[in-house]
Amino acid sequence: MTIRIDDSLMYRDRLDGLHGLDPALRDTMEERFQVIRADIAGRRKSGEYGFESLGRQDAVVASIEQWAALQRGRFDHLLILGIGGSALGAKAMLTALKGSAWNEWDAGRRDNWPTLTVLENVDPVTVLGTLDRLDPRRTLVNVISKSGGTAETLAQYLIVREWLDRSVATDAKDHLVITTDPERGALRALAGSEGITTFAVPPEVGGRFSVLTAVGLVPAAILGIDIAELLAGAAEAVDAALADQLADNAAARWAMLQWQAHATRAANVHVLMPYSDRLRDFAEWYRQLWAESLGKRLDRDGTEVFRGPTPVGAVGATDQHSQVQLFIEGPFDKTITFIRICDTVDMLTIPGRDGLGPDMSYLVGKTLGGLLDVQFVATREALRSQGRMSSTIEIDTLDARTLGHLFMFFQLATGYAGAWYGVNPFDQPGVELGKVLTFEAMGKDGF
Amino acid sequence: MTIRIDDSLMYRDRLDGLHGLDPALRDTMEERFQVIRADIAGRRKSGEYGFESLGRQDAVVASIEQWAALQRGRFDHLLILGIGGSALGAKAMLTALKGSAWNEWDAGRRDNWPTLTVLENVDPVTVLGTLDRLDPRRTLVNVISKSGGTAETLAQYLIVREWLDRSVATDAKDHLVITTDPERGALRALAGSEGITTFAVPPEVGGRFSVLTAVGLVPAAILGIDIAELLAGAAEAVDAALADQLADNAAARWAMLQWQAHATRAANVHVLMPYSDRLRDFAEWYRQLWAESLGKRLDRDGTEVFRGPTPVGAVGATDQHSQVQLFIEGPFDKTITFIRICDTVDMLTIPGRDGLGPDMSYLVGKTLGGLLDVQFVATREALRSQGRMSSTIEIDTLDARTLGHLFMFFQLATGYAGAWYGVNPFDQPGVELGKVLTFEAMGKDGF
Repeated sequence: MTIRIDDSLMYRDRLDGLHGLDPALRDTMEERFQVIRADIAGRRKSGEYGFESLGRQDAVVASIEQWAALQRGRFDHLLILGIGGSALGAKAMLTALKGSAWNEWDAGRRDNWPTLTVLENVDPVTVLGTLDRLDPRRTLVNVISKSGGTAETLAQYLIVREWLDRSVATDAKDHLVITTDPERGALRALAGSEGITTFAVPPEVGGRFSVLTAVGLVPAAILGIDIAELLAGAAEAVDAALADQLADNAAARWAMLQWQAHATRAANVHVLMPYSDRLRDFAEWYRQLWAESLGKRLDRDGTEVFRGPTPVGAVGATDQHSQVQLFIEGPFDKTITFIRICDTVDMLTIPGRDGLGPDMSYLVGKTLGGLLDVQFVATREALRSQGRMSSTIEIDTLDARTLGHLFMFFQLATGYAGAWYGVNPFDQPGVELGKVLTFEAMGKDGF
Repeated sequence: MTIRIDDSLMYRDRLDGLHGLDPALRDTMEERFQVIRADIAGRRKSGEYGFESLGRQDAVVASIEQWAALQRGRFDHLLILGIGGSALGAKAMLTALKGSAWNEWDAGRRDNWPTLTVLENVDPVTVLGTLDRLDPRRTLVNVISKSGGTAETLAQYLIVREWLDRSVATDAKDHLVITTDPERGALRALAGSEGITTFAVPPEVGGRFSVLTAVGLVPAAILGIDIAELLAGAAEAVDAALADQLADNAAARWAMLQWQAHATRAANVHVLMPYSDRLRDFAEWYRQLWAESLGKRLDRDGTEVFRGPTPVGAVGATDQHSQVQLFIEGPFDKTITFIRICDTVDMLTIPGRDGLGPDMSYLVGKTLGGLLDVQFVATREALRSQGRMSSTIEIDTLDARTLGHLFMFFQLATGYAGAWYGVNPFDQPGVELGKVLTFEAMGKDGF
């Protein structure tokens, strides 16, 4: 197993005896799980679970790798135009596997892999700064929109296209790669008429489930990330989540516990708290996945229910000095899921000096990674003793394979959570009204 | 007024007639506000409200500016060792006034002001990468800990000190500046014995209220931010928050509405959503302030109450594609506070091209800033029509003065919120247990 999950601290008998979930759930949920499984099996046939097959895409990997190899050395910068599901996955991958300060390394220390800038907003200050900073002659622009009609991304495209045209003129199309629907939408039409390289997003995979499609794999390959390993990890997660008993199925069980905590213990806030800076953007990716999938007005029968937990990201140990006071002493309205990475525990010995007082001398000879891990254990125990529910996901090392596993684990868990919550986790009807009002105000035809 | 607040969309009569706050609160809270004011006046005398005087610190400003002027040109990098309140303020200021990609600009475009790296964690991967990347000979290290005993910061200091000693040897103390308590703690002792420059944090100002003390002002001055303007904005906010009628006191009123939404409408999630990339880290700063101040087990009388809203950061328009689905369709358990910046509306005209289809042509000739603002208006209206409570803080331009005003506004509002919620907003007893367990596991004397 690439990842291990301990969810024992979700249960009352392991907490303070007062708070937490009924231990009987360990048994009583098995029967309901079989109903959930049957329901999902039916929906799988109707195509809702397209993302589950993303662990095995040999032809896609080969075509992306072949194309990416041809780009190697041509560019210093990768500029992504995309928002939401078209942005969060690439950011999460870069931060996890290359570090959040990647762009600040010189080219040699990046082994000449490009920097990454993601334009995920229409803030003109950010866009102007970015175009001022990057050299268009050394920039590859990846325009990403599953539908091909996202207003923010198309507006960015028009601005960036003019910027390219001014500097690289007729070569602009060699600086562009488009990731969009295989047939439909404005970007697909544009790519066809101009001969721009495109990669297709499978129509049966939703935007927030698309990190393991070309949406995430094209940037990953350009940045030197092993995309075959990402998918191998994802395939492992899919295999694990097919287990037909809840006791053996960590993704379904973790989802059940989050739902039960919400439904029976009023825990409407679900915190993901990796003890690692490298997973900070992963927590942002999770936030979209969990919020947009489960935040729904209607249940599967069309009854008005207004469901959905609020996902919150945190990073240990940093947030011990920010959010943990609230987690420990505030209302009993939260679950916390920690992520612990084991192979950093022995890293970076703390050196001594002469004349250190007792506030510092106890640190000498310990490792910084050990201090981080001790803080994780201490914080979990402090929360436990105050009756606060938590789960822990443990991985040995953070590499492309475990990251792919984590992505797919949370996607599978989200699918299961939709079933437990009784909502459709694959649509997002609530954002339509805002889009319509935006189109009206911008004077788009037909609005 | 540097900032304007519209809180009309918190009330039922401006929403869908079903959800939101009772419009009678506009009147009925005046009386209670007078009780709150009297309570705060008493606590002010006992010193709890030390942060309110930070708008006027002429001597502190002069000494920091004088010292900072001597450092000008000596360093390419500012490295902060600090966590929580010792890190979040500097990050928020840099992102707001210099942009989140500041470190990626070349020195000329930074007008030779240094880059900023904040080590706010004990993740060894981050620390090793940082020390590998920065040149110690060109780095100024600001060690920040109000108490002087923060384990994370002291561990970082030992590692960074060895790194400095290896490269700059006897000059190491010229690369260090310490911000800590004026008399007590390990850092104060160390600075004294080694002759390291120090700046004092007033003991009567708590860590999460310290951005406008030397904690934030020293980094700001080194980065070329006008600290006198920051404080001038803060002083304006203090003046506005002394108004003795709730109708005239935006900070007290905003805090009252957040509390009422929580207490009477079960809104335990408070979202801060600036429509600006530059305020992304400001939202993180707010998150600590709100969570750590209001998340409390005991009320002012010592009764167990487990209070505290969960603050959530969001950025518009980006989060329209992530969290807004949940905000619009999920449970009625949230308030949203938007921040709108007016002077970017006309920025960056979207250029046309030949042959654009209807999905793109409507954008041509509009501005990107206008699109951002239209999306704000559309999202607020979509939320309103679905009965979702929101407030809007509007500023004309984002500069040092308005940023100082915003910092102080939220600090003042947090003080008022403590009074409305009936908890002490200035302590953080819940994190002590985790600290004790950490010290035990690390073998610190006396634990």
